[in-house]
Amino acid sequence: MKFIHTADWHIGRKLQGIDLLLDQQFVLENLIADIKKDNIDFIIIAGDLYDRSVPSKEATILLQELLVELNIENNIPIFAISGNHDSRERLAVGEAWFSKHDFYLHTELKQAFNKIEYKDADIYLLPYFEPYEARAYFDDDSLTTHNSATKRVIDEIYKNLDETRINILVAHTFVAGGLETDSEREISVGTVENVAVEIFEKFDYVALGHLHNPNALNNEKIKYSGSPLAYSFSEAKNTKGYRLVDISKDTLNEEFIELKQKRKMHNVVADYNDIFSKEFQEKFNYKEDFFSMELSGLEGVTDPMPRIKEYYPNTLQLKSKTKKENSDKNYDKKEILTKSPLELIEGFYRDEIGEELSKKQRDTLVTLVKEVEVDETN
Amino acid sequence: MKFIHTADWHIGRKLQGIDLLLDQQFVLENLIADIKKDNIDFIIIAGDLYDRSVPSKEATILLQELLVELNIENNIPIFAISGNHDSRERLAVGEAWFSKHDFYLHTELKQAFNKIEYKDADIYLLPYFEPYEARAYFDDDSLTTHNSATKRVIDEIYKNLDETRINILVAHTFVAGGLETDSEREISVGTVENVAVEIFEKFDYVALGHLHNPNALNNEKIKYSGSPLAYSFSEAKNTKGYRLVDISKDTLNEEFIELKQKRKMHNVVADYNDIFSKEFQEKFNYKEDFFSMELSGLEGVTDPMPRIKEYYPNTLQLKSKTKKENSDKNYDKKEILTKSPLELIEGFYRDEIGEELSKKQRDTLVTLVKEVEVDETN
Repeated sequence: MKFIHTADWHIGRKLQGIDLLLDQQFVLENLIADIKKDNIDFIIIAGDLYDRSVPSKEATILLQELLVELNIENNIPIFAISGNHDSRERLAVGEAWFSKHDFYLHTELKQAFNKIEYKDADIYLLPYFEPYEARAYFDDDSLTTHNSATKRVIDEIYKNLDETRINILVAHTFVAGGLETDSEREISVGTVENVAVEIFEKFDYVALGHLHNPNALNNEKIKYSGSPLAYSFSEAKNTKGYRLVDISKDTLNEEFIELKQKRKMHNVVADYNDIFSKEFQEKFNYKEDFFSMELSGLEGVTDPMPRIKEYYPNTLQLKSKTKKENSDKNYDKKEILTKSPLELIEGFYRDEIGEELSKKQRDTLVTLVKEVEVDETN
Repeated sequence: MKFIHTADWHIGRKLQGIDLLLDQQFVLENLIADIKKDNIDFIIIAGDLYDRSVPSKEATILLQELLVELNIENNIPIFAISGNHDSRERLAVGEAWFSKHDFYLHTELKQAFNKIEYKDADIYLLPYFEPYEARAYFDDDSLTTHNSATKRVIDEIYKNLDETRINILVAHTFVAGGLETDSEREISVGTVENVAVEIFEKFDYVALGHLHNPNALNNEKIKYSGSPLAYSFSEAKNTKGYRLVDISKDTLNEEFIELKQKRKMHNVVADYNDIFSKEFQEKFNYKEDFFSMELSGLEGVTDPMPRIKEYYPNTLQLKSKTKKENSDKNYDKKEILTKSPLELIEGFYRDEIGEELSKKQRDTLVTLVKEVEVDETN
């Protein structure tokens, strides 16, 4: 059985005010062109179809066109879930009709327990949910974290798992070991939101959405597809595409297929005086691509942006390199993920002020962090 | 063949800030209960399903529930169009799947020419459209009014009309002879928007939406259903319900069925001192119903509203009767409909200022009215 695993389309996303709709159309039309050639059984879209709970009219039209082309015109079954960016109620409009045409879209936690039987596979569609929903569903106040809530949900699924079938889970969550990009950072504080990878072990394939880096998790059958486009400069280095999965009960072959981008993102680290040469400029599709510039040699240059934009019109960020080296040197992304919120604040205070927190400061922080964690899980 | 004709649900409508969602649910659930008993062939919904182009989450959920109950759970075919209050793009989400399950929803002018064959009937679904859309579609700059544009559309439909079939048109427009209510007034200036009733003569039944009064048009086969609920106090006296139509090529039996309302609207014209008696109060479901009070005897009463609301909590309007008698005596709704904008302004000036317009004033107005009329039709 062959299927495509994609996620995090974020239709309607803007990049610092710049509309990406045509970029999204370009990339996703290429995805559909691949699908038509590949003779696949179905496509999985693991959440965040839209970027906003109330998408624009134009975003609504584009997503409809893509889904109609896949499911109505080409009869490709779709297995999809809502992500944290989708409004479940708005996304669910039409679902009762979709499912009659092999387009399965789950937006409610309780739907995760209704497996969909497709050929040799049982497919479980677990939409993005908050711990409070699991607490209500199971009437269990102990489910205060994403990890405990997700574990409880998966255990419930396991109760009726038919291990002779190919069991596929589709979920939109932050599985531990994942590397965040800027696009998701705002929704994750410390390690509160992580879900342990071990709880998914009984599935034959887990198609994840939420993190935009396809390599965010290093596991042979539990995978992120990543987003089909880069949505922040921290994703500039990620390869963007989808996963093509060929699965039987005993075998799993999976391949990451890169998608051609309309406009790429570049983090350029260079000296201000070097970037205006033709040779430097022509390393890029400089008229179209997006640039974040981190430049040395800006001392004494007043208002450098107009000149930079003359050469690289879509320059969206400009940082001074020397400044960045000082302030950011102690913040390593992987290291941050292993620390508690309290440790992070202590470290930040130490770096910036040059001394340790007083006992009174520390006690106040402990109380505050606890309050925030309780709030977050409510 | 038996069908129900309804329109102007305006799901999500508020009445002076008061949420009517539970009222709408109550009334429309009663409509569906009738449908289940009546053994009808299909239901027509002639536009304005939602009240706003971006309906609230709650409105979205209610409309979905009603449509799922009709079409998915009870297998009732639905023939629907978008009205001027609907966002065609948002309402059209899912349409490609709906039509595979006998739920036909047209939102684009061009779809009006794709008749839907259902048993002995050919059904034409003409969504609300603006004259500029007809100008573009037919490449004909002469279509500047709703009347000329609609006539052109209907003539196009007539080209392929099979007169041996039962021909049903569904449209959302203001057909001449209609009586406006406050709910629609804002969209119609003078007689610009009217469509002549004669152009529809070749149809066996025309199911109209737009005007909320079911008796807005006096024609035996071209009918408004009216809205299922009153949406402004000017509709308080309208009977609210739907039309039950039994049609063959030679016969048309049509019955207006009243729908029970959760909360009624009342225009109370009385003396301030009379409304606080138990006898007066108990003429109404006074705790629940909506009231517009037009009271005499308010002279010398400071801040009457709190006392009135003690007896009639949902009092939404209060007018002094003597004042109204003076200022409104010359404005009769039927008379207004027969006058041009210029005549209306001349009359208003005469009534308020007590003299005629000067030549200069009149000339300026002629120019202004012309400009507005051109703008309106663009």
